[in-house]
Amino acid sequence: MERVKARTLSGFMELLPAQQVQFERVKDILAQTYARYGFTPLDTPVIEASEVLLAKAGGETEKQIYRFTKGDTDLSLRFDLTVPLAKYVAMHYNELSFPFRRYQIGKVYRGERAQRGRFREFYQADIDVIGDGSLDIINEAEIPAIIYETFTALGLKRFQIRVNNRKILNGFYAMLNWGHRAGDIMRVVDKLEKIGAEKVGLILHDDLGLDQDAVGDIVEFMSIKGSNAQVLSALEGYRGRNETFDQGLDELNTVVKYLSAFGVDESHFTVDLTIARGLDYYTGTVYETMLLDHPEVGSVCSGGRYDNLAEYYTEKQLPGVGISIGLTRLFYVLQEQEMLNPDLPTAPADVLILPMTDDLSPAIAFATVCRSEGVRAQLYTEPKKFKAKMNYADKQGVPFVAFLGEDEVQSGVVSLKDMTSGEQEKVDISAAPVWLKEKVDARNMGAPIDG
Amino acid sequence: MERVKARTLSGFMELLPAQQVQFERVKDILAQTYARYGFTPLDTPVIEASEVLLAKAGGETEKQIYRFTKGDTDLSLRFDLTVPLAKYVAMHYNELSFPFRRYQIGKVYRGERAQRGRFREFYQADIDVIGDGSLDIINEAEIPAIIYETFTALGLKRFQIRVNNRKILNGFYAMLNWGHRAGDIMRVVDKLEKIGAEKVGLILHDDLGLDQDAVGDIVEFMSIKGSNAQVLSALEGYRGRNETFDQGLDELNTVVKYLSAFGVDESHFTVDLTIARGLDYYTGTVYETMLLDHPEVGSVCSGGRYDNLAEYYTEKQLPGVGISIGLTRLFYVLQEQEMLNPDLPTAPADVLILPMTDDLSPAIAFATVCRSEGVRAQLYTEPKKFKAKMNYADKQGVPFVAFLGEDEVQSGVVSLKDMTSGEQEKVDISAAPVWLKEKVDARNMGAPIDG
Repeated sequence: MERVKARTLSGFMELLPAQQVQFERVKDILAQTYARYGFTPLDTPVIEASEVLLAKAGGETEKQIYRFTKGDTDLSLRFDLTVPLAKYVAMHYNELSFPFRRYQIGKVYRGERAQRGRFREFYQADIDVIGDGSLDIINEAEIPAIIYETFTALGLKRFQIRVNNRKILNGFYAMLNWGHRAGDIMRVVDKLEKIGAEKVGLILHDDLGLDQDAVGDIVEFMSIKGSNAQVLSALEGYRGRNETFDQGLDELNTVVKYLSAFGVDESHFTVDLTIARGLDYYTGTVYETMLLDHPEVGSVCSGGRYDNLAEYYTEKQLPGVGISIGLTRLFYVLQEQEMLNPDLPTAPADVLILPMTDDLSPAIAFATVCRSEGVRAQLYTEPKKFKAKMNYADKQGVPFVAFLGEDEVQSGVVSLKDMTSGEQEKVDISAAPVWLKEKVDARNMGAPIDG
Repeated sequence: MERVKARTLSGFMELLPAQQVQFERVKDILAQTYARYGFTPLDTPVIEASEVLLAKAGGETEKQIYRFTKGDTDLSLRFDLTVPLAKYVAMHYNELSFPFRRYQIGKVYRGERAQRGRFREFYQADIDVIGDGSLDIINEAEIPAIIYETFTALGLKRFQIRVNNRKILNGFYAMLNWGHRAGDIMRVVDKLEKIGAEKVGLILHDDLGLDQDAVGDIVEFMSIKGSNAQVLSALEGYRGRNETFDQGLDELNTVVKYLSAFGVDESHFTVDLTIARGLDYYTGTVYETMLLDHPEVGSVCSGGRYDNLAEYYTEKQLPGVGISIGLTRLFYVLQEQEMLNPDLPTAPADVLILPMTDDLSPAIAFATVCRSEGVRAQLYTEPKKFKAKMNYADKQGVPFVAFLGEDEVQSGVVSLKDMTSGEQEKVDISAAPVWLKEKVDARNMGAPIDG
């Protein structure tokens, strides 16, 4: 037979079983945390009509799209979860209740140049709150509180949520009479951390034509640092010169105040005036989240407030606020940096049951009771040597092996071997499932991230 | 602004929030049940190289594939989860332990003609056990036991797993000297239930050229009915005439014996000689699962034993056994037939918290404690009239509303309204989260399917 070489496309993450279990654990915590805040799960198609999906796209994004025809239909694979949300809300406007809070964890597709740590198929994990006509500012504080809760639940400690407000930036550039180029200036200033103040100043002057005064004012503004109270206080010095700025400052004050009420420690969030987010889409509060020990990774969770979710589909004004975690990339980084908790089991089963009798009924019955107790039990019945069976358990990292021989069956016990300690003991067969459940639960304690 | 009409492609299931919650509930039970049996979760890319994915495909399947190029790469969307599994196991043979037990619940794509209840994007929920060179027969009995457990956990009562063995059929047709056309005969006999014995006989005679004796023997064989013991006993009458037949009968006897040991009641499984499954791929035990009250739906869970999972990719012999549930189609039928349990909550939150004070801190603190107790809590802070707020809770089906006014805050209580009974009571604020958790858990008792 002619054979084809089995391979997976580059840029597509495909995990080995133990890693997949770790990935699922992270994904489940995101879903659970989002659900705790009253977000409803949504699942939209991976394929959409190109005309619908690309109503708004352009430039870089459009080039990356997987677009093709089937019959005479022009189709595209979704490249984010926001456009499908906009479509969904516009379509189902009359059937939804607002504020509409949804989470979606799903795969998206971008045909980027393949490189290490960049993926063409990757999971995004998004939450958004959509208002009908208006949306209370408290949502802009609750969203970073949810980021905080999510990362904390994952076990991550050294991260920082950076918060800014686009109105402050727009207002500030308007003060300098450069409001008409605010977007371009933001894109330059966005590189501050990477290229430094001097180069940013040069680009602003040479490429955008700002005079030295304006450049000086911008560099000075961007150098406002310190505690949140200090930054907010420094910003007060600019109040009264531009209405948009003042509104942005009020919003930022409110967000910072409520963030404390939500229990987010100041060590985990900071007002950072250099943050703008690339997209013009955002109109108010914006967020980025950095891993403090791995700034090179960039933001692992970003988002912000927008005024019009679905303007390409509906005349309804649907303001909202949302964030997105690039889950596949985050997981890749956690693996690379060896930040995944190695103590959590990754085996497919909690207990491997080895029947040593011809009649399998006692082993089957024991497996059934274990499962109903919530213990993941696998029967191993292949006719292999004892050593091969134990190797199998070992290689998979199964925490417990159960032996059921004639002796055990006769005396109503099961021999349970703890594969970590190597200890083995006989346990009454009726008590064994609960015995296992307790030990297994203890093994599973702890967060997926270690650090 | 020019607007695009928001729409979802036909043949793509997109659910409203309440339905999505019901869907997730079904999906979670499948994942949980599979995991209890020691299957590890797997997640493979939706896109594969066409050359890899289509190594084996042909005919009808190939026509339905979503196939396209990106740059100069020839790509296809997966049309099932079995081919990706074969690829995965061939690729990672050295890193896996055998028997390798995996489950995968994921979307697959088939560009079928769109029609009611048929989907172009749909979830499959598969389990497979793959052996290295050999695989114990007990797996062929455990698999239908897992189907039984799964459907029972979903709350389904009136279903029947139909079991047969391809060796019995191949052996039987060989006895008639028609072994060389066994595949074609099976495809005709497969229509027995639909078109009746007379027409099947005509086709076998007219189209395949079987003489009247052979047709008579086949019709007689296929009319073997009764309890499993009766069918097996009737089959014994054919023993000794063909080795393959005898081997198949031994296997079927073993499967039936162990199925009882696994606790599967005879009312839920039956030996059915007419079952063959279309694919030549299957070599031993085969399964179909019928909804007894909806035979028109066809099989909702099918599978079987195969000798060579990955022969197109590797020379290793990898026998296995697996089943697949067409989850999207199953969910569609459950909805259509109104079989989903209407008593289970579908709201995004368990409790909607309405702060009635200017200072939101007490409400935020209460929400936080509720969440840490496992209660899904949503703060509602939009400046709407009281009636609008209650309408919102009502429309979403939120089970409880919590009021926190000055009075409540002063006296350390919260007013909790049960939205089903309309009753309202004041509960000590520190006791309220547990109070809610108990009531919410009680509401969530019960299986997703009602019937």
